[in-house]
Amino acid sequence: MKTMYRSHTCGELSIAQINNEVTLSGWVQGIRDKGFMIYIDLRDRYGITQLYFDEENTPKNIMAQAQKLGREFVIQVRGIVVERASKNPNIPTGEVEVLVKELTVLNKALVPPFTIEDKTDGGEDIRMKYRYLDIRRNPVKNSLMFRHKVAMEVRKFLSDEGFIEVETPYLIKSTPEGARDFVVPSRMNEGQFYALPQSPQTFKQLLMVGGMDKYFQIVKCFRDEDLRADRQPEFTQIDCEMAFVEQEDILNVFENLTKYLLKEIKGVSIDSFPRMTYDDAMRKYGNDKPDIRFGMEFGELNSFAQHKDFGIFNESELVVGIAVPNGAEYTRKEIDALVDWVRRPQVGAKGMVYVRYNQDGTFKSSVDKFYDQDDLAKWATATNAKPGDLICVLSGETNKTRTQLSALRMELATRLGLRNPEVFAPLWVVDFPLLELDEETGHYHAMHHPFTSPKPGQLQLLDTDPGAVKANAYDLVLNGNEIGGGSIRIHDKDIQATMFKHLGFTLEEAKAQFGFLMDAFQYGAPPHGGLAFGLDRLVAILGGQETIRDFIAFPKNNSGRDVMIDAPAFIDDNQLKELHLKLDLKA
Amino acid sequence: MKTMYRSHTCGELSIAQINNEVTLSGWVQGIRDKGFMIYIDLRDRYGITQLYFDEENTPKNIMAQAQKLGREFVIQVRGIVVERASKNPNIPTGEVEVLVKELTVLNKALVPPFTIEDKTDGGEDIRMKYRYLDIRRNPVKNSLMFRHKVAMEVRKFLSDEGFIEVETPYLIKSTPEGARDFVVPSRMNEGQFYALPQSPQTFKQLLMVGGMDKYFQIVKCFRDEDLRADRQPEFTQIDCEMAFVEQEDILNVFENLTKYLLKEIKGVSIDSFPRMTYDDAMRKYGNDKPDIRFGMEFGELNSFAQHKDFGIFNESELVVGIAVPNGAEYTRKEIDALVDWVRRPQVGAKGMVYVRYNQDGTFKSSVDKFYDQDDLAKWATATNAKPGDLICVLSGETNKTRTQLSALRMELATRLGLRNPEVFAPLWVVDFPLLELDEETGHYHAMHHPFTSPKPGQLQLLDTDPGAVKANAYDLVLNGNEIGGGSIRIHDKDIQATMFKHLGFTLEEAKAQFGFLMDAFQYGAPPHGGLAFGLDRLVAILGGQETIRDFIAFPKNNSGRDVMIDAPAFIDDNQLKELHLKLDLKA
Repeated sequence: MKTMYRSHTCGELSIAQINNEVTLSGWVQGIRDKGFMIYIDLRDRYGITQLYFDEENTPKNIMAQAQKLGREFVIQVRGIVVERASKNPNIPTGEVEVLVKELTVLNKALVPPFTIEDKTDGGEDIRMKYRYLDIRRNPVKNSLMFRHKVAMEVRKFLSDEGFIEVETPYLIKSTPEGARDFVVPSRMNEGQFYALPQSPQTFKQLLMVGGMDKYFQIVKCFRDEDLRADRQPEFTQIDCEMAFVEQEDILNVFENLTKYLLKEIKGVSIDSFPRMTYDDAMRKYGNDKPDIRFGMEFGELNSFAQHKDFGIFNESELVVGIAVPNGAEYTRKEIDALVDWVRRPQVGAKGMVYVRYNQDGTFKSSVDKFYDQDDLAKWATATNAKPGDLICVLSGETNKTRTQLSALRMELATRLGLRNPEVFAPLWVVDFPLLELDEETGHYHAMHHPFTSPKPGQLQLLDTDPGAVKANAYDLVLNGNEIGGGSIRIHDKDIQATMFKHLGFTLEEAKAQFGFLMDAFQYGAPPHGGLAFGLDRLVAILGGQETIRDFIAFPKNNSGRDVMIDAPAFIDDNQLKELHLKLDLKA
Repeated sequence: MKTMYRSHTCGELSIAQINNEVTLSGWVQGIRDKGFMIYIDLRDRYGITQLYFDEENTPKNIMAQAQKLGREFVIQVRGIVVERASKNPNIPTGEVEVLVKELTVLNKALVPPFTIEDKTDGGEDIRMKYRYLDIRRNPVKNSLMFRHKVAMEVRKFLSDEGFIEVETPYLIKSTPEGARDFVVPSRMNEGQFYALPQSPQTFKQLLMVGGMDKYFQIVKCFRDEDLRADRQPEFTQIDCEMAFVEQEDILNVFENLTKYLLKEIKGVSIDSFPRMTYDDAMRKYGNDKPDIRFGMEFGELNSFAQHKDFGIFNESELVVGIAVPNGAEYTRKEIDALVDWVRRPQVGAKGMVYVRYNQDGTFKSSVDKFYDQDDLAKWATATNAKPGDLICVLSGETNKTRTQLSALRMELATRLGLRNPEVFAPLWVVDFPLLELDEETGHYHAMHHPFTSPKPGQLQLLDTDPGAVKANAYDLVLNGNEIGGGSIRIHDKDIQATMFKHLGFTLEEAKAQFGFLMDAFQYGAPPHGGLAFGLDRLVAILGGQETIRDFIAFPKNNSGRDVMIDAPAFIDDNQLKELHLKLDLKA
């Protein structure tokens, strides 16, 4: 855009402007000083334009001034667009350069602590401290612009579908549901606290009670969790809710949204998304967010592998294997490395049995002592192995073994290049369990959240077999990542009260925390349900990345710190006093 | 939208669907039970459809069920669209009704605590407590939908202009700048606190240093202020910043945005917005956000009213009047009431002098003893009074008197119907002072914020006459409300340091709080500036309202409480302990 400081941006000039006088402003990307000629790459958000100075055409003082410029100086130049002698086909402005007649230094720059290049020499820590310099780099700048584009398309699609974006409050009430809340002390209400929302869940349900019919919001959410890699204490959701719907309606709308994004943003058309039950996902992939860009489905081997003389399998709850494409050619050393990999504490398997399915149709296994060729042929059938594959088999307690084999499956797929970030394989996982057993406490808690509706007719199972109750809950999985999840909600006060009871709330606790919601259900709550996408991850995956950090302008580190502004920080005693607080520090 | 629960919405049916079988879901707005016939108004977000039941066509059990329905019950019906005998031209579906064959009660409803009508019987307090019911009412529902529309148009315009929406963090660092921060104790960083942003000011400036060139964000901001009426502790800004610009660039872009909104949303075309200096606004309207939908400009009368025998005026710093159109016909009682009005403590004038400018061209004043007809004719000229007007004159200390007369001007304009909410009069107020004297402390503080640039060449005035320094700072005023404000920023480290010094920061304090920004300025900061609109107020004014509350889904009351969810609230001792805090309550 033309401003007082420029007639054109640095991404705009071409043969069309030859002989025009132009004014450009931007950063000095690089300088080549040949004494009698100087070339400068001038950079702004829109591109790079080559500036040219020479002894013949450039006033002496301007030459001298140009020679003193450094990287990242901010300058303004006036000059004439000329055709380049040697053109650069790699950049849009590569056919022209600007012969400079006037030069103004708008601001000097210290030498940046890392290079402002696509491949920088700066490590993660220094880039975060100087994030404003990191953002000048194309990979980060483009990621932020990509995020904007995705958010715009999301809003366009949902708004066109009749969804209304409603802002819900950030200063709400702390509830012990789910993760830990960030809280905000109230100065005006002594001793009391607001909480920052973990999600606008109850508010969006109240909007449905309020007849808003279709709601969405792209909204920041907050969780005070111990941060694992690639988790942020504040994150962004595309939060959605609809009234007078069943699960099928919601899956349709958000499948259409996702298709729209894939088409508009990536040019990828997908007909319809496959669906899989939670139980099937766990059985076939050991994972409730399977990456289905590739096969390697689990084959359960109990009936072929047990009741032989191999004690380890006989004592296992589950014996399960996968076929690794073309793995039969792995050397013994490579296979040993795989065994070591699954035995790492992060994976935790005790060991691994393997079978080479040779090209000639014979099998060679690490347990040939116990299993003959016929036995192993059955394993091959169960794991869908072909000649040339390697069958990897783990065993033990069902859930743990599945998790271990899932880790192995993902690791091998990565090594085999099967996780192509430009291939998109969405999947609905449905029929999630309503409750999840906390192995530590022995209590059940809500797998999605306490507002999720059990499947019709399963309410009474809550008393007899709570773990078996399925919910109208669903996740949208993309390339092995959960990008969205939701459920049909309870809209009946009594069922909500029953749920709270089963989750261990006393009636008083439920009323104190969620009384407003149960009250609302008495005044004509419609059937409703919804879904929330994790925008950070969605954008990263659409952008072909596994990590979300480059898609967040100012991310926090794993201690929840912003190292650029150095937050959090200590505050004044006066501030504490006004908030009716004292620090209670460890000695 | 068609869902599992409905084939059509309640706002959709017309003659085109006659004889179709349809399924509708919604709330019972009203019932007229004539025994052998029952009419029900069924309501959803989209409209109202009349349902019809009669003894001849409706199964007996359905009739009986219908008779038991109450207001706000949620029902689903299946039936046939028929033409109405007596049509209702006031609603889009008024030509048809649905003859009901099946009825399902989806949820019962208690009698709502206030009527769900455009004009409700519910007071503010009860409506806030049951906000989810209030939102069912058209005025609130439509306000929220209107807000969505405005936000969508803002995003469309800015995105088309090349602005990138970037999400800045909510968990930042507390700074004593401006209002009081809300803070968030950090569990992982003992004794330390995040703060919620009062605005993303420093982050948007860092995005400019980062080369983002044009940034915007519709973003929540937080201020822990003692709440005046119509202030919210959390509020929404359209926050914008641009690099390589001067003030003129910014005024152009955001004038265009505002014109676009007025055109798209209200169908109002405005050629170009007038501009007025801060000094002129204060002199002509006694106010830095004058409502220019009407005249009644101030006339300063010192030179005509002083040096006569009227001591009160002689002792006044300022004597200033306005002409009230057709006010000459006010009775003595009405004028006395005006005098009482300006003497109320909220206004604070000591008294008021008035002059009737009679239709015959003569004057009759409350100070005829001191001023003759020639004197008063000069007052009339200065205040632009016409025969038939009433001139109201206040006097005293300049700033106070202007504020008092401004209050009177606005009050009279309201009474005279001159503040038509469907007329839009935007105005740029420019050349704001850089600093403002705090009369209590005797210190200067930043009128906009510490990052505002003084006008070129005025930096040295800071030492000699700080109050006289003008800034490249501007407000956008609409109908007497500030809807946006901004400035050209400082982008030089040394000037920023000078500013901090003049604002009373020690070098250490400046570094501790804003070191990251001054550091950033060393690495090639471009000239930049921006503007932020208050979205809540902008939407309210475009919607023709003076109060913002109906345009916020879940507002807080004047004690900062959400009375619906009852927040803030006390939290667990465990939570406090984890946060390294103790309450410090008054005994």
